[in-house]
Amino acid sequence: MTRATLVEQIRKKRNYLCVGLDTDPDKLPVFLKNYPDPVFEFNKRIIDATLAHCVAYKINTAFYEVSGPSGWESMQKTADYIPSTHFKIADAKRGDIGNTSSLYARTFFESLAFDAVTVAPYMGEDSVRPFLEYTGKWTILLGLTSNTGAADFQLQTLESGPLYESVIRKSLLWGTTENLMFVIGATQASWLSSIRAIAPDHFYLVPGIGAQGGNLKEISEKALNKDAGLLVNASRAIIYAGSGENFAEKASIVAAGYAAEMGIYLENNR
Amino acid sequence: MTRATLVEQIRKKRNYLCVGLDTDPDKLPVFLKNYPDPVFEFNKRIIDATLAHCVAYKINTAFYEVSGPSGWESMQKTADYIPSTHFKIADAKRGDIGNTSSLYARTFFESLAFDAVTVAPYMGEDSVRPFLEYTGKWTILLGLTSNTGAADFQLQTLESGPLYESVIRKSLLWGTTENLMFVIGATQASWLSSIRAIAPDHFYLVPGIGAQGGNLKEISEKALNKDAGLLVNASRAIIYAGSGENFAEKASIVAAGYAAEMGIYLENNR
Repeated sequence: MTRATLVEQIRKKRNYLCVGLDTDPDKLPVFLKNYPDPVFEFNKRIIDATLAHCVAYKINTAFYEVSGPSGWESMQKTADYIPSTHFKIADAKRGDIGNTSSLYARTFFESLAFDAVTVAPYMGEDSVRPFLEYTGKWTILLGLTSNTGAADFQLQTLESGPLYESVIRKSLLWGTTENLMFVIGATQASWLSSIRAIAPDHFYLVPGIGAQGGNLKEISEKALNKDAGLLVNASRAIIYAGSGENFAEKASIVAAGYAAEMGIYLENNR
Repeated sequence: MTRATLVEQIRKKRNYLCVGLDTDPDKLPVFLKNYPDPVFEFNKRIIDATLAHCVAYKINTAFYEVSGPSGWESMQKTADYIPSTHFKIADAKRGDIGNTSSLYARTFFESLAFDAVTVAPYMGEDSVRPFLEYTGKWTILLGLTSNTGAADFQLQTLESGPLYESVIRKSLLWGTTENLMFVIGATQASWLSSIRAIAPDHFYLVPGIGAQGGNLKEISEKALNKDAGLLVNASRAIIYAGSGENFAEKASIVAAGYAAEMGIYLENNR
């Protein structure tokens, strides 16, 4: 998906919500267990119920790999099921030497037809470059993550400033606003203004609202740009809003709530 | 596998060779293509031929994921085929927030029964901790990698020294010599003495000899410790030593060569 299409979708739907399909096989509503692929069945219903209230879906690969080949099939079916109107993210946090990163890029951009994949920056430019080489696809580089461990290295000071800033500054030379985004955790809102000063036009994927406690209002006020420039993700808060037969309906209500709130922030940002 | 068993295997076999199963489905000898699972068939023959000359196998997950569910099956079969006398590494370079890392740990330590998994440190302690919680399993944390991109961040200077040093120093507080190793690229031999000063007793997984150009003699002289403390990996140089019907025999010859050279360094190190 191109940036123009993504921005158009955000304007049309008046939200920048990404629904995180962190679908834990152990947490499915009991009545789904008799379906041939309960994980896919769960995702299908979540997607049907939230489609109108979001612009993106994020599939966390760990939750699928844990079931082996059948989990990988559930992931594949889910990615295929998400319509092309919605931005599809593989939250895989891959990154390795060039020949290996090329294979990861092929996996997520060709075999699985995701629009974007999250990439860890520790191994530097040649580990990221193979992802950036795909036209119309996106690399979402970890900048400042939402977890407490972000303080261990990302917030450590290099001669030029914190490490995460160095990651963002350097990678601005590798990609463009059309193929590179950054992961900026919602729990890191106090840094958002200074991050926007470094990368004003890029999109940020912001996980960490809902279960992780990030504040949507603060994030939006600090980081929305003229094209929105944000995809804010909620996973557990949406997909586990209910646990009974009406879980999808409950998910829809929570997603619609986030979307409506985002509509206000977009309006205020005009 | 415990450290005691690993050290015993190294002493018995007189080498510290790890064979990297970076098995590219596009590079298989033509005659294997008619087998039901050509990748597994290739690996099986490589394992049979090299078993006597190595102490470990490393499976690079990217090469399996690229084929989707069937690739995952080939990985599973390969991991199962490696005998318990050999240390099994998943070179997966995972790392995410705690609940996600827990699932990756379950995948590689429980579903797939690897002894070790490589982990990226960018997200800090809580992203690494779930891997360390498994008794008898190993976390192999990226320290200083073999690729040129290592210069982008790993060699950048924090107030306390280079980033990779900070990664090693901090993580020494998270794990022990019994459950934590470091990836130190063979192309980074000039840093090895200073790394040994920081982590004298830990094992290092050293990729990058062979196709990537690292020097086995220099690495061994600088980094062998009293328990060997090294697993040196070669992938392409061994598994693609031949491309015809005798590929496994050729792989065996190259592996035996590395093993014999390692025997000398172990002898010199006594």
